[in-house]
Amino acid sequence: MISMRVLALDPGYDRLGVAVLEKTDAGEVLLYSTCVITNRLETLHERLLVIGDTLSTLLTQYTPDSVAVETIFFNKNVKTAIGVAQVRGVILYLAQKAGCVLYEFGPQEIKVAVTGYGKSDKQGVVDMIKRLLKGVPEKAYDDEYDAIAVGLTAVAHYRK
Amino acid sequence: MISMRVLALDPGYDRLGVAVLEKTDAGEVLLYSTCVITNRLETLHERLLVIGDTLSTLLTQYTPDSVAVETIFFNKNVKTAIGVAQVRGVILYLAQKAGCVLYEFGPQEIKVAVTGYGKSDKQGVVDMIKRLLKGVPEKAYDDEYDAIAVGLTAVAHYRK
Repeated sequence: MISMRVLALDPGYDRLGVAVLEKTDAGEVLLYSTCVITNRLETLHERLLVIGDTLSTLLTQYTPDSVAVETIFFNKNVKTAIGVAQVRGVILYLAQKAGCVLYEFGPQEIKVAVTGYGKSDKQGVVDMIKRLLKGVPEKAYDDEYDAIAVGLTAVAHYRK
Repeated sequence: MISMRVLALDPGYDRLGVAVLEKTDAGEVLLYSTCVITNRLETLHERLLVIGDTLSTLLTQYTPDSVAVETIFFNKNVKTAIGVAQVRGVILYLAQKAGCVLYEFGPQEIKVAVTGYGKSDKQGVVDMIKRLLKGVPEKAYDDEYDAIAVGLTAVAHYRK
């Protein structure tokens, strides 16, 4: 029986990490993951449309009951933070419109959920998601691995 | 003849200023203006949905050819800027989806376009939009006046 299906995202203008995970009686399953790369020659608005339309398609295709994203880092430069926030706005709007429950997790919370340790490095997180889930690509952009880690955190959070 | 119709917005979570202006052979006309106030008791996500759905309705109802917003102030506190950026993301996405041309103007550009002077105060801008347009409400939230000023700037910009 499926108890939860989550669309997890690592938002960005250049690259959008995407993962769809399901929690079943048999454990966690990775249904899909990818990294959407937008065209740098297009305007930010055009790229926002590509991102939004991709999300709409994913929401229709996988009918997740929840959407999970990482909280925004405030220590990044403000311009980047503003850009990411605009992408997040589109994500939150479309998720809410689709009736999904929304989860947000901080970077440390994600590390603890995936590795049991809040100060793991990137490689430690990647190694762990490969151990915990079948079908994680051997090589991928960080954004895709980050999305999978967010998805695992949502599943772990749900379990509690 | 109508040469331009713009949906102008002053984005925010609490209050969203809205104005629809049209440029015709006879001059500029204010078709509609309001201030959408979201419910502070709702989650940010719920309020984002209200804002997005309001925009969708306005885009369908008024079929503007362009959408105009003010650029983000970076000197505001970061948390506010992030919130406004999320709302802007939804605006830009829906505007692009509707095939609208997007305009962004800085605060000084708006003051110059409306009053001819880059250091006008808020009251100076309000007085001027009341002189330039019929139907500007006598009393309204700043957000509504700001949206009308953004709309006037878009119309003036188009004229050039």
